[in-house]
Amino acid sequence: MVSVASSQVAAVAGVDGTAVSPDRLDGVELVRSVRRRVSRGELSPQQALRAVPAADVARALVPPVDTSQLVRIARGLGVSPGVASGVAVFSATEAVAAAEAGQAAVLFLPETRPDDLPGMQAAVATVTERGGLTSHAAVISRSLGHPCATALADAVVDRYGRCLRTAAGEVVGHGTVVTVDGLAGTVYRGAPPAATRNPGIDAAVGWLLAQANGMPHLPVRVNADTPTDAARGRDAGAAGIGLCRVEHMLLGERQAVLRDALLVDRGASAIDALAELQSVLRAGFTAILSVMDGLPVTVRLLDAPRHEFLPDARDGARAPLPAELLDQAQRLHEQNPMLGVRGVRAALLMPELAVAQLEALVDATLELRLRGNDPRPEVLVPMVSAPEELAWVRALLEEVCRWRGHRPAPDGLRIPVGAMIETPRAALLARALAVRADFLSIGTNDLSALVWGLSRDDAELELLPSYVELGILRESPFDAFDTTGVGELVRYTVDTARVAKPELPIGLCGEHAGNPPDVEWFVQAGLTYLSCSPPRVPITTYAAARHAVTSPE
Amino acid sequence: MVSVASSQVAAVAGVDGTAVSPDRLDGVELVRSVRRRVSRGELSPQQALRAVPAADVARALVPPVDTSQLVRIARGLGVSPGVASGVAVFSATEAVAAAEAGQAAVLFLPETRPDDLPGMQAAVATVTERGGLTSHAAVISRSLGHPCATALADAVVDRYGRCLRTAAGEVVGHGTVVTVDGLAGTVYRGAPPAATRNPGIDAAVGWLLAQANGMPHLPVRVNADTPTDAARGRDAGAAGIGLCRVEHMLLGERQAVLRDALLVDRGASAIDALAELQSVLRAGFTAILSVMDGLPVTVRLLDAPRHEFLPDARDGARAPLPAELLDQAQRLHEQNPMLGVRGVRAALLMPELAVAQLEALVDATLELRLRGNDPRPEVLVPMVSAPEELAWVRALLEEVCRWRGHRPAPDGLRIPVGAMIETPRAALLARALAVRADFLSIGTNDLSALVWGLSRDDAELELLPSYVELGILRESPFDAFDTTGVGELVRYTVDTARVAKPELPIGLCGEHAGNPPDVEWFVQAGLTYLSCSPPRVPITTYAAARHAVTSPE
Repeated sequence: MVSVASSQVAAVAGVDGTAVSPDRLDGVELVRSVRRRVSRGELSPQQALRAVPAADVARALVPPVDTSQLVRIARGLGVSPGVASGVAVFSATEAVAAAEAGQAAVLFLPETRPDDLPGMQAAVATVTERGGLTSHAAVISRSLGHPCATALADAVVDRYGRCLRTAAGEVVGHGTVVTVDGLAGTVYRGAPPAATRNPGIDAAVGWLLAQANGMPHLPVRVNADTPTDAARGRDAGAAGIGLCRVEHMLLGERQAVLRDALLVDRGASAIDALAELQSVLRAGFTAILSVMDGLPVTVRLLDAPRHEFLPDARDGARAPLPAELLDQAQRLHEQNPMLGVRGVRAALLMPELAVAQLEALVDATLELRLRGNDPRPEVLVPMVSAPEELAWVRALLEEVCRWRGHRPAPDGLRIPVGAMIETPRAALLARALAVRADFLSIGTNDLSALVWGLSRDDAELELLPSYVELGILRESPFDAFDTTGVGELVRYTVDTARVAKPELPIGLCGEHAGNPPDVEWFVQAGLTYLSCSPPRVPITTYAAARHAVTSPE
Repeated sequence: MVSVASSQVAAVAGVDGTAVSPDRLDGVELVRSVRRRVSRGELSPQQALRAVPAADVARALVPPVDTSQLVRIARGLGVSPGVASGVAVFSATEAVAAAEAGQAAVLFLPETRPDDLPGMQAAVATVTERGGLTSHAAVISRSLGHPCATALADAVVDRYGRCLRTAAGEVVGHGTVVTVDGLAGTVYRGAPPAATRNPGIDAAVGWLLAQANGMPHLPVRVNADTPTDAARGRDAGAAGIGLCRVEHMLLGERQAVLRDALLVDRGASAIDALAELQSVLRAGFTAILSVMDGLPVTVRLLDAPRHEFLPDARDGARAPLPAELLDQAQRLHEQNPMLGVRGVRAALLMPELAVAQLEALVDATLELRLRGNDPRPEVLVPMVSAPEELAWVRALLEEVCRWRGHRPAPDGLRIPVGAMIETPRAALLARALAVRADFLSIGTNDLSALVWGLSRDDAELELLPSYVELGILRESPFDAFDTTGVGELVRYTVDTARVAKPELPIGLCGEHAGNPPDVEWFVQAGLTYLSCSPPRVPITTYAAARHAVTSPE
């Protein structure tokens, strides 16, 4: 696809009468030239989209920053694109303090945990010694739109000594100015000249995105867990929220709420902890549904492995932790947490947790209706591997509606319930799931992991880079969607589910939805919508609109 | 299927003129009655098979021991059937000492590790506080044919205090006589009267198994990693070894050999460690191939996660370990080892390990040929998810043959190379794999785990029992093969692989191959052979032969 697109670009440039090869045109220049030609009436807006490949728009959205004059001090995995500079800090508290003092800070940590969120929000970039593309630091940074580098190959973060120690023997202390390139995964000493930083989106690029947004295309939703991300997505033209992750609504200080609910044995204190959880989620849902008024908001029930919210036994070696906490963490320890009690399994084993989430959603919806709003929540059930699991959650939701005095459809509150297709078994049983579901949503991250039998965080450190080097793979299946293997199951899902229900909405909410070449494949596979992180909404929309104008009628 | 079989039994009993309902006939009585009728000429041997369901033969092979007079002291998960009594011991060393003193011992441990093997071999049964159906203790016990209970719900093993402490406050000290029921997962104080113990296989049952063995049926191979298990399988009529696990050849004292090979950085000491590994494996392969002379022996390359052979960081808290060992263990730590660097991935990342295994196999084969034997090795490549991985191992084997002075076929040594189908992607790419493979072997244990997204050891402790209780599942998919989900991929594998190569052998070597109801399904799915653990060979053979005489021509 890329080569075809390049030749189209060459043709356009040729018409222009310039001898510039497409390789030398950077994204912004290409878009500007195309816009001029549209304004001169030489091209239609549709032809403008055909002339500019999505990859060029993506480059134009993240303009290169010149780091060539800086000294590289560490190298790792780039997990959230962009370049940012600031003073090095070594704790979330220091990052918050720097921000309050009006100083841009780069947060360095061995790895981030949910309670580091305020620090990550305050910092302009994050660097973690350990991690991978789906580590906590990576996921949060992408959602914030901040650069992030993880898995440092040649440096360690010494949080007690408050410095970065490199293999070359350098020590980068607190307060040193550094620059992070979150695409290359590199850290530099110093900062580029201010003029080259934060140039903002070029006006021509903004114009082109607006053209794309105005053309018919596959709906693009946003993955958003906060009102801020929801608004960012809505501003970029998102047709709703395709993935609102309950566990991401419980980060930072709110993490303690979930931990208490997991910790306490069932009894009086459990009731308090669950009431608190419900109250926090209700406020969160109300805010997000308000921002997305009139548009669908797909709320995914808690999916994180339980131990992520409990202390790591290794933490205990550094600072003594309450015995009760460590006992529970030990009890919930799983050898392979990715394959453990997550998603619907946690809902079934701890139904009170599922009830708290559903009650919060129902209450937020009723409250907004009373205010005259038009909230459109949907419940997405993660890690489904048997249709009975979905039926169980649906029954629970109906119970909750009854308790709240609202009968299910047709005369009362009706919240669609869908299954996430992320285990291979869910894909293989898509027809049976479709019968019980109002919609399906394909999660390509976990589905790819299970189809390949790969744990992404581990594999991206050693295995996948080696496989690319050995020529076994061209790209990581987590970066470029694996159409041959995982794609076969996606096609099977769409085809068999539609046998049961021809009009069933089937969305897709993995990170691949933000990768332009994959967007084309997903459109052709017959999906109903795509959902991607807020910074990717414009490029995914562009890729979908461009596909619509380039594909044969 | 069971109900049909029962009605057939009822019919036979009716002919006999007795009013005994089939439910009241225990397995041995039913077989004896059928044998009498064959000897009287009333039934043919084929009719005898039709009259006795495999489940009754299975019961007849493990006759019930009367534990009703004993006091139960602990309850867990039964993971290896049978009943055995002995004195309680709390270390592998004590088990060996007891055996040397002529005393039957039951080994209690928090969990077993590879170096506990000599103790498990010396003991008559093993009980571990932690574990599951595929834990080390379970797998080894089934291979030894010893009873084993794991995952105790109401007792802890105190290895330092050398006792079992129960929730009821009882303390069972070293030397106490106990009885273990490895089917029910229970531990009793005391032992049943000697007369009821170890009755051996009933003569009529032996006769029926011999009839089955003599009839045409789908070939049954044995999973065997030692000459003893190989001989046991061959004696039971196995048509070869379907799964010889290299990691199981490196247990006990030999574990250190693999650990050294994993530990050392590449250099002089690595060459020593690899030479030692090669020498140990060569001796093992020679012995196994001798026992199985003239029959296929499928050797699966090393598949265990690397950390299983390295110390657990938690061990370090009890007894200080060398820093080098702990560093390496830390470096190789994986968040989800089941989805980590295993099987062909380890072969690709540490090719010297793969070369050592292949050289050992080639050398053992050449040595036996020189002696005039007829060794028939096959190489099985585990955890394949891309055809290129298989091609890489095949190229490596050809290299090894060339180094050893033997060109590959047609004029030299030709060792078939096959892919294990245990990741969903291998199943989805079966056609491409078939092109590059001499055979395929479906591993239903890992395939089930990945299709469901379940880690068996974790899931069997909490999730699966709860799911059965809630009515979400009728049985664990690890006990009874999931024909709806995993079965869909097995059918897809067989159908698409045979498009590429109509005569391609496709075996199956998961534990389901030892479960009679599943055997029938596998035969119908078009598999070429089944391979099961040594104690299951007779019942699997019986189920396959019975299927052949009961299915319509």
